[in-house]
Amino acid sequence: MDQKKTPLFEALKNHVQKSPFSLHVPGHKSGTVFSEKALLYYKEILSLDVTELTGLDDLHEPTGAIFEAEELLSNLYGSYKSFFLVNGSTVGNLSMVLSVCGANDTVLVARNCHKSIMNALKIAGAKPVFLSPEFDTDVQVPTLVHEKDIIQAIEQFPNAKAVILTNPNYYGHTNELENVITYAHGKGIPVLVDEAHGAHFGVGQPFPESAVKSRADIVVQSAHKTLPAMTMGSYLHFQSDFISLERLEFYLKSLQSSSPSYPIMASLDLARSYLAEIKDQGVTELYNQIKEYHRHLSKIPQLSIVVPRDKKIVQDPLKILLQSRSSLSGYELQSLLEKNGIYTELSDALNVLCILPLAPQDLKRFTRRLGQVLAGVQSLNEEKRIVEFNKLESNFPHSYFELKSKKEKLVKIEESINQLSAETIIPYPPGIPLILQGEVITEAHLDQFMMLQRLGARFQGNGSTKNINIYDCD
Amino acid sequence: MDQKKTPLFEALKNHVQKSPFSLHVPGHKSGTVFSEKALLYYKEILSLDVTELTGLDDLHEPTGAIFEAEELLSNLYGSYKSFFLVNGSTVGNLSMVLSVCGANDTVLVARNCHKSIMNALKIAGAKPVFLSPEFDTDVQVPTLVHEKDIIQAIEQFPNAKAVILTNPNYYGHTNELENVITYAHGKGIPVLVDEAHGAHFGVGQPFPESAVKSRADIVVQSAHKTLPAMTMGSYLHFQSDFISLERLEFYLKSLQSSSPSYPIMASLDLARSYLAEIKDQGVTELYNQIKEYHRHLSKIPQLSIVVPRDKKIVQDPLKILLQSRSSLSGYELQSLLEKNGIYTELSDALNVLCILPLAPQDLKRFTRRLGQVLAGVQSLNEEKRIVEFNKLESNFPHSYFELKSKKEKLVKIEESINQLSAETIIPYPPGIPLILQGEVITEAHLDQFMMLQRLGARFQGNGSTKNINIYDCD
Repeated sequence: MDQKKTPLFEALKNHVQKSPFSLHVPGHKSGTVFSEKALLYYKEILSLDVTELTGLDDLHEPTGAIFEAEELLSNLYGSYKSFFLVNGSTVGNLSMVLSVCGANDTVLVARNCHKSIMNALKIAGAKPVFLSPEFDTDVQVPTLVHEKDIIQAIEQFPNAKAVILTNPNYYGHTNELENVITYAHGKGIPVLVDEAHGAHFGVGQPFPESAVKSRADIVVQSAHKTLPAMTMGSYLHFQSDFISLERLEFYLKSLQSSSPSYPIMASLDLARSYLAEIKDQGVTELYNQIKEYHRHLSKIPQLSIVVPRDKKIVQDPLKILLQSRSSLSGYELQSLLEKNGIYTELSDALNVLCILPLAPQDLKRFTRRLGQVLAGVQSLNEEKRIVEFNKLESNFPHSYFELKSKKEKLVKIEESINQLSAETIIPYPPGIPLILQGEVITEAHLDQFMMLQRLGARFQGNGSTKNINIYDCD
Repeated sequence: MDQKKTPLFEALKNHVQKSPFSLHVPGHKSGTVFSEKALLYYKEILSLDVTELTGLDDLHEPTGAIFEAEELLSNLYGSYKSFFLVNGSTVGNLSMVLSVCGANDTVLVARNCHKSIMNALKIAGAKPVFLSPEFDTDVQVPTLVHEKDIIQAIEQFPNAKAVILTNPNYYGHTNELENVITYAHGKGIPVLVDEAHGAHFGVGQPFPESAVKSRADIVVQSAHKTLPAMTMGSYLHFQSDFISLERLEFYLKSLQSSSPSYPIMASLDLARSYLAEIKDQGVTELYNQIKEYHRHLSKIPQLSIVVPRDKKIVQDPLKILLQSRSSLSGYELQSLLEKNGIYTELSDALNVLCILPLAPQDLKRFTRRLGQVLAGVQSLNEEKRIVEFNKLESNFPHSYFELKSKKEKLVKIEESINQLSAETIIPYPPGIPLILQGEVITEAHLDQFMMLQRLGARFQGNGSTKNINIYDCD
């Protein structure tokens, strides 16, 4: 197939070039009705912001330009069928989970999954078995669930409806999934992969391969995160012998706007073509430039580029995790950069994550400025270790469906042992849930909780108080 | 509050004016990495297409610019709390339904509700009681459910978890809902209103009032349909003593992208301010112009502007439904207009729907062109009646939750009497479901089905074949 083609973008452009007169939605009428003060930013895009007119196809029943654009997408990644998503990877994750499980069904789920996976499990009413990722004490972040832990869980729960993994994680740490997928398929269990941060995978060595290549049943990618697509634009790839395509399509149709955004959809078409071109030309120039940034950054004594100890984990070259080697915390480092006009992706107590562009681009302004702003800061030789995170047993005795009918009550934290938590507590670092809603709270949980509090971790959820919500099981 | 303010748009503009350097998502890096051929359309908007950076707040935990923008929205419409939606009214409808009902719960639902309501009921596993709208034999479309039918249903099902209505319908037909809402509230039942086509309501007489004014518990509006907002931008207004705000917020957070689009959100901020300005200035000029279009259109003998017979129904002035008074069908009329560069909202066998801009705008090009293209077509004096649609009894014995575990089988249509339909059949016209998935198929259904086929109605679903999917209840 001719990957240079962008059928949806062309169809829109053809429509615009007719100077059509709009007596239909949207209300801005191709930008002729709009706030004057914002027209500079919006004027051109609004001409593409139309509805399902003749020739522009329909995302939810594609037969024309969108059908063709999705075929090109499927062809590029090598899936059986691929979909444009306009509600981010969130809707991809929701749809893939809901298409494999319902009330009381057991599923095996990586504990470091995105909250959209957790929300999907709640909506489905499923009974999750959580698999803990490894914690890398150098990088001071959770990496990925170990292959042997996944296989062991499959042995223990042969009736599980699916294995649900995040790969790569937010930091670009990536595992080869082929063994796990082959093993799961041998047991008749599908593997769903949230590959939100890996839409550019498969572009060529040394970039990792996509889980589509490893035959994962469904793979969801945020095109907008690393490819040149508008925010909320994502892809979903399907190639399963175990999952009903009809059921998946029901959720994709139900959970996405019946008026999907054409600017976002056309940007997905353009991004696919852009990626195909890079794949065609090779990534040598891009990778050489990334190595040069590494050289520049490694000369800054107040920083260190950190990658996982586990040699099996491949680091996505587009992500650089900078660890502070000074008195500055990761938060302070990020804030200092922002004051100098440089905006990074995230920070934690130790680290700042940078996402590089997928095209050779002059980042000297960044590396030079970084060196300058840190020049006055005293560097420290030793690494700062903040957290020793223990993997804890997870005991999740009821399904989310059963939990729906239980009442909650607030108790003192020391009275919560052996009770069912009605809330989720996520410490940063390490950024994965310490206690998940529905899990039995143990003494080990509380020990870890207090240790993290002492070490200055921040908490999402109720972590700062002395009380916790539990399910009242009397 | 100062409705001229647009805090979210201003925050974005301030960010852009710093010429920030992006090491974060999205991958287009403020438009510096993008397909050359599309830059003309995308360049300016991509500078606003950013992520949750410092100063730009977070849709899912708003405390800054988005919080302030949503407060202005709530203030303008007079709700208790209002929300920006980035996944269209679809996500508003899904969230409001899921926040009131779960597996096996009875809800009273207008049969002409949007498919997102129907999908929400399926996902919830609810047990719907469907209320049929009136069918207007002049306009040849279904209008709205009669007040007495709603009140009677509440009497019959006092344990219903909610009344779910669409108001206005697609054609701008609007009912005053105050009596129904007061009655339902007296029985402890919340009323949810899909007001997708009425985001501009309350702008001033003769435009209808919003259901927010009538104290509906939740009201969902497609800002993008009639206000100057980008497609997928919607509002949800909450003011309920019966519904958990926490539960509603769980679904809004879960079912919308965790990377919501800033261009869409800022356009919602701008659209609210735009509407406030119109409200302030009055709609006299706009309404006078609409009346002038009516005068021009009424001189074209091949057309008639049609409104419902029922005098209690208020017609939204922004919608004009043109009925053919010639040998042309509605479909042919729409197609003829498109060939002349004029794109309308929808057509059916008889009618073409036009949505006017919410600002005085020169539509002479439209009315003149319409007169010209129809000049050669012979006009007919009598009205063309295509359908006599009978309201049929609805018997929905199982919840969607119970139906999930039932098997389906395909049977000949004449063998389906007294069976449970496993599919939905929607004839156009009249555009409301004849048979809904889960309903008992009766002889009256089949009579109506065959009558519609003879009259040349089109069908969504399996309407053209001789077979139908039923649930196998043996």
